[in-house]
Amino acid sequence: MAEIIECVPNISEGAKTDVVEKVADRVRAVDGVKLLNIAPDAAQNRTVFTMVGDRASLKEAIDALFDETLKHVDLTKHKGEHPRMGAVDVVPFVPIVGATVDDCVELSKEVGAMIAEKYNVPVFLYEDSATASHRKNLAKIRKGEFEGFAEKIKEDDWKPDYGPDEVHPTAGCVAVGARPFLIAFNVNLGTNNLPIAEKIANEVRHIGGGLRFVKAKGFETDDPNVMQVSMNLTNFEKTPIFRVVEMIRREAARYGVSIVGCEVIGMVPLQAIIDVADWYLQLIDFSRDQVLETMIFE
Amino acid sequence: MAEIIECVPNISEGAKTDVVEKVADRVRAVDGVKLLNIAPDAAQNRTVFTMVGDRASLKEAIDALFDETLKHVDLTKHKGEHPRMGAVDVVPFVPIVGATVDDCVELSKEVGAMIAEKYNVPVFLYEDSATASHRKNLAKIRKGEFEGFAEKIKEDDWKPDYGPDEVHPTAGCVAVGARPFLIAFNVNLGTNNLPIAEKIANEVRHIGGGLRFVKAKGFETDDPNVMQVSMNLTNFEKTPIFRVVEMIRREAARYGVSIVGCEVIGMVPLQAIIDVADWYLQLIDFSRDQVLETMIFE
Repeated sequence: MAEIIECVPNISEGAKTDVVEKVADRVRAVDGVKLLNIAPDAAQNRTVFTMVGDRASLKEAIDALFDETLKHVDLTKHKGEHPRMGAVDVVPFVPIVGATVDDCVELSKEVGAMIAEKYNVPVFLYEDSATASHRKNLAKIRKGEFEGFAEKIKEDDWKPDYGPDEVHPTAGCVAVGARPFLIAFNVNLGTNNLPIAEKIANEVRHIGGGLRFVKAKGFETDDPNVMQVSMNLTNFEKTPIFRVVEMIRREAARYGVSIVGCEVIGMVPLQAIIDVADWYLQLIDFSRDQVLETMIFE
Repeated sequence: MAEIIECVPNISEGAKTDVVEKVADRVRAVDGVKLLNIAPDAAQNRTVFTMVGDRASLKEAIDALFDETLKHVDLTKHKGEHPRMGAVDVVPFVPIVGATVDDCVELSKEVGAMIAEKYNVPVFLYEDSATASHRKNLAKIRKGEFEGFAEKIKEDDWKPDYGPDEVHPTAGCVAVGARPFLIAFNVNLGTNNLPIAEKIANEVRHIGGGLRFVKAKGFETDDPNVMQVSMNLTNFEKTPIFRVVEMIRREAARYGVSIVGCEVIGMVPLQAIIDVADWYLQLIDFSRDQVLETMIFE
């Protein structure tokens, strides 16, 4: 089974489509990397690239992405709604198949060291790659943005993990790190009572005393008779979808409320779907290799 | 999304590994076909090849498989436990992704016509490709086997669909057809009472008045406190796994018996697993394209 890692670099250019295409072409030219999606946003002046590959090919792709992006993006002239500290702003690695978060941590360090050496850009390891707890959160690292980093990087707490103690004059600095796959998942409740959804969201989420890898918030929907618990599941292996749904189902029942539907927003790894089927069907010794398509493709 | 069809030809040679390998090599040499498994059985003197590909490549692979098999297999000298009427005995086509049973029926007719023309072997269309109801069932077609077919083929009911009204002197004849994917699925019940499993098996299966695409039988297991409803689900789109399991769960509850586990034997298409997750999670507008791996591979 081949190793598949997802990489979702964000660059600080979302308006000039020719620049975005040049960067995309450089990534496409790397053997073993598949560019799945390009999401430019002109107002944010930022583009998110979604690609998959193995360690070696992704390292090469990020090298190419830096090389091309740094030719075109000058942060001293950059304006956009999205906060940013680098021309290439953030490079997250996410394990999909045949690789662990630890593998991605290792990869992020290799890539970080390479970027610092080849491009003289300071690198901050973040999320599971972070070297201190205050450096896990991307928003905290990025605070002050490109303009503020000339000073911030001098502070003891904000020495980069790789590269010079000085911000690159046009490319700023970059956050590189590993994190588990994030699943955006909503549970719709058959009630017109928003506080019920808000209360359940609070109870099921980590900060409210609930499940460790759940971020949740209660929302109204377009239908006045449906309220929503909207979630990010930040580690579906340790806090699986079915456990979250069944906890919400039970909590809702306490108010006489039922789940009327659930939504997966965006992508979900095959394993997360298999885990759901496995649990509800009480499967004995089921292996992902039994899914025909994995035999064909992996 | 690429078209993926499974083809599972059986040839009447399972002892001579050099012959099996020669046939396998011919299949492997066809561009666009992936040979997933080779299952030779010396006692049955028969080998099952499992391959996947699109229509054009599978047609080429079956051509190559016939060409090589007919060089080596002489049914006048064939002995084996498994009933057989042809050197290549049966060629089933099964839709997996981006193809329907109807597409496979069409393909089976194309392949059947080709075999008849190139190899002068009489072809019987079976299963969903059958041209009459008495010719759907493979066992019925094969009755009399190679030795009896010289006479049987003269009967009005048993004229071949393609090719001569005479059995090929060494290669016999062949059944070619399309069928949906078959899932072998067992439900284990927490009871030492075999008649409960047998009664439920009878109630859930088509011939007992139950679900249309279920074949079922009650069995003992190695554990005296666990009895099994062992099934073939012959069309998981129309009779999905979850509906079968939930019907059995309800029937078992009538005796105070619970499901203690379920087993998928062998392979299962991704869509059947997605359908399970979709149903239990009450998903709204979930598409197979949201499974990350399909984006990478299809």
